[in-house]
Amino acid sequence: MTKEEYMALALSVAESTIGQTSPNPSVGAVVVKGGRIIGIGSHLQAGKEHAEVHALAQAGEGAEGGEIYVTLEPCVHFGKTPPCADLIIKHKLKKVYIACLDPNPAVAGKGVAKLEQAGIEVEIGLGEARALELNRKFFYFMKTRRPYVTLKAAMTLDGKTATSSGDSKWITSEEARLDVHKERDIHDAILVGSQTVIKDNPQLTTRLPQGGKNPIRIILDTNLSIHDDARILDQVASTWIICGNKADVETFSSNHPHIEVMQLPADKIRISDVLDVLGEKGVQSLYVEGGSTIHGAFVREQLFQECHWYIAPKLLGGANAITAVGGESPLFMNDASSLTFTSVEQIGPDIKVVARPKEAR
Amino acid sequence: MTKEEYMALALSVAESTIGQTSPNPSVGAVVVKGGRIIGIGSHLQAGKEHAEVHALAQAGEGAEGGEIYVTLEPCVHFGKTPPCADLIIKHKLKKVYIACLDPNPAVAGKGVAKLEQAGIEVEIGLGEARALELNRKFFYFMKTRRPYVTLKAAMTLDGKTATSSGDSKWITSEEARLDVHKERDIHDAILVGSQTVIKDNPQLTTRLPQGGKNPIRIILDTNLSIHDDARILDQVASTWIICGNKADVETFSSNHPHIEVMQLPADKIRISDVLDVLGEKGVQSLYVEGGSTIHGAFVREQLFQECHWYIAPKLLGGANAITAVGGESPLFMNDASSLTFTSVEQIGPDIKVVARPKEAR
Repeated sequence: MTKEEYMALALSVAESTIGQTSPNPSVGAVVVKGGRIIGIGSHLQAGKEHAEVHALAQAGEGAEGGEIYVTLEPCVHFGKTPPCADLIIKHKLKKVYIACLDPNPAVAGKGVAKLEQAGIEVEIGLGEARALELNRKFFYFMKTRRPYVTLKAAMTLDGKTATSSGDSKWITSEEARLDVHKERDIHDAILVGSQTVIKDNPQLTTRLPQGGKNPIRIILDTNLSIHDDARILDQVASTWIICGNKADVETFSSNHPHIEVMQLPADKIRISDVLDVLGEKGVQSLYVEGGSTIHGAFVREQLFQECHWYIAPKLLGGANAITAVGGESPLFMNDASSLTFTSVEQIGPDIKVVARPKEAR
Repeated sequence: MTKEEYMALALSVAESTIGQTSPNPSVGAVVVKGGRIIGIGSHLQAGKEHAEVHALAQAGEGAEGGEIYVTLEPCVHFGKTPPCADLIIKHKLKKVYIACLDPNPAVAGKGVAKLEQAGIEVEIGLGEARALELNRKFFYFMKTRRPYVTLKAAMTLDGKTATSSGDSKWITSEEARLDVHKERDIHDAILVGSQTVIKDNPQLTTRLPQGGKNPIRIILDTNLSIHDDARILDQVASTWIICGNKADVETFSSNHPHIEVMQLPADKIRISDVLDVLGEKGVQSLYVEGGSTIHGAFVREQLFQECHWYIAPKLLGGANAITAVGGESPLFMNDASSLTFTSVEQIGPDIKVVARPKEAR
């Protein structure tokens, strides 16, 4: 196997844990000596061993003089586990391949420096693009302290998410809806507007055949207007409600003591304030499920990093039907948000289009 | 080569002439003897030789005892050329492979019967699906006497074709717009509403680097309200205007004597009447470029056979922006027109989605 192939293996084991390591990144490690793989590991859960620990434990004393491939720069800090750079030095490895540096500017390069000071050869950048992609949400959060935002819509081919009467059941297939549950499973939080709660009364939980993790349910509700029978008020998953400064938080909280309410300082909810608040609370990834007005606000303020568009093979028609992205239209087509399609795949009878803003913001 | 491969070759040469044989279908023929191809032909232009004539002329007397692969049942009628069934009999071929029968129920099977009466073996159905697909517009017209309708839209990922102010330049890329000109080139006629003429003042001609054929420009204009400076009133291509029974045809025609005006018997234009009129005039394929209200009418009445959707990687936003398919929304999502995606391809930065109604209508 080539060094590219060893790193690809480390990246594959890291990718296999996407969504289960938050708030930590997904990391993989492979230890090689004399052309044989002697250790493979990945970080499995926050608070548990890092990838290097598992891989080096497998390798044992045989690691001496070998090489380790890691998808992220080994840590130098004492957190819930001892520093991995020290562990690599202790195992007397000859060379360390690192796909990408730590995204935290205060720490980036320190792992490399420590290894080099100990006389270990370090090569950086092998498989870098894939490593950055793998942990893009974590990296974005570390750099901006705001969650990585994915807008999700399920629409007809002519861009409708509901009829004029509000009926939306169902636009997409069971297969597409299952894919949505997979996305919920790997996001820290999910966000909808109060109108979606009032009209559709969704559960907003992860319902996969094999189980799954429920994201925190974030509801934007300027005046705390959702009804008492809203299913998101249950205790199946955490719910945070974000409201404006005119809302009567006291009454609401006394009725729903288990719901966390976050009051913003203005009478209208601004998306940038929401992202700041969620970032402070450590939410790294946010899955925005609409509805139309909410998507309109995220698009108008260009505060999103990814779009997941499920398009059903249907034409609804209707100038008065509900559009996927509402709000106020810009005057000129040139003022539309420019994206790049990153993938298009068929899911059952539907297609899923993934796009990202053309320029990184 | 296998018999499937010979028929595939005949289909390929037929496909190469799509759009240039109207009102005739595209047809290919391959003559084989002793494992060698001795003739290849395709029908190139209405009024000129049929595919069999070209292929058998190449084969000459050597065709005796050979086989011919034809993508459509050989004709038995004396039209602008003598019957091909007779020509095959005259050349003393041993066997004829036919991909599909003539779509005209009054004629279907007559070519086969004549060949069999002459002692020639006939095998029907080799490559049939591809042969039916190849001439689907011709076949549809022969069966229904209405044009095969393709709806075309160019929209943002959120289903908008223009901003609230009507600005739509440009949604899709040059590459996508070039593809639209390719489609115009292979359609008999193109249709838009008067609002599109008034707002965008398009030329509606085929502008390909290598030239191309202009489709007939059909304008739906209930009250003959388009302005005198409309570019579709030029004489670069034919223009037919369809209006309601309240329109002042006399005045319009005296101002624009070269424009054909077709007045329908009702005060409102019904799509089914339009298709009947165009069918009577021999229009086999119609490319509907909108706008929103026109698409809404075709979708509501489910009078289309194909959709070509160009989707640009842009999010415009706006409940008040123009939607790809307008008109009145149905009350229930279940009343949307069900389609099947038949292809998705990337064209420049955009994607082109082709879909067809789920059940043949």
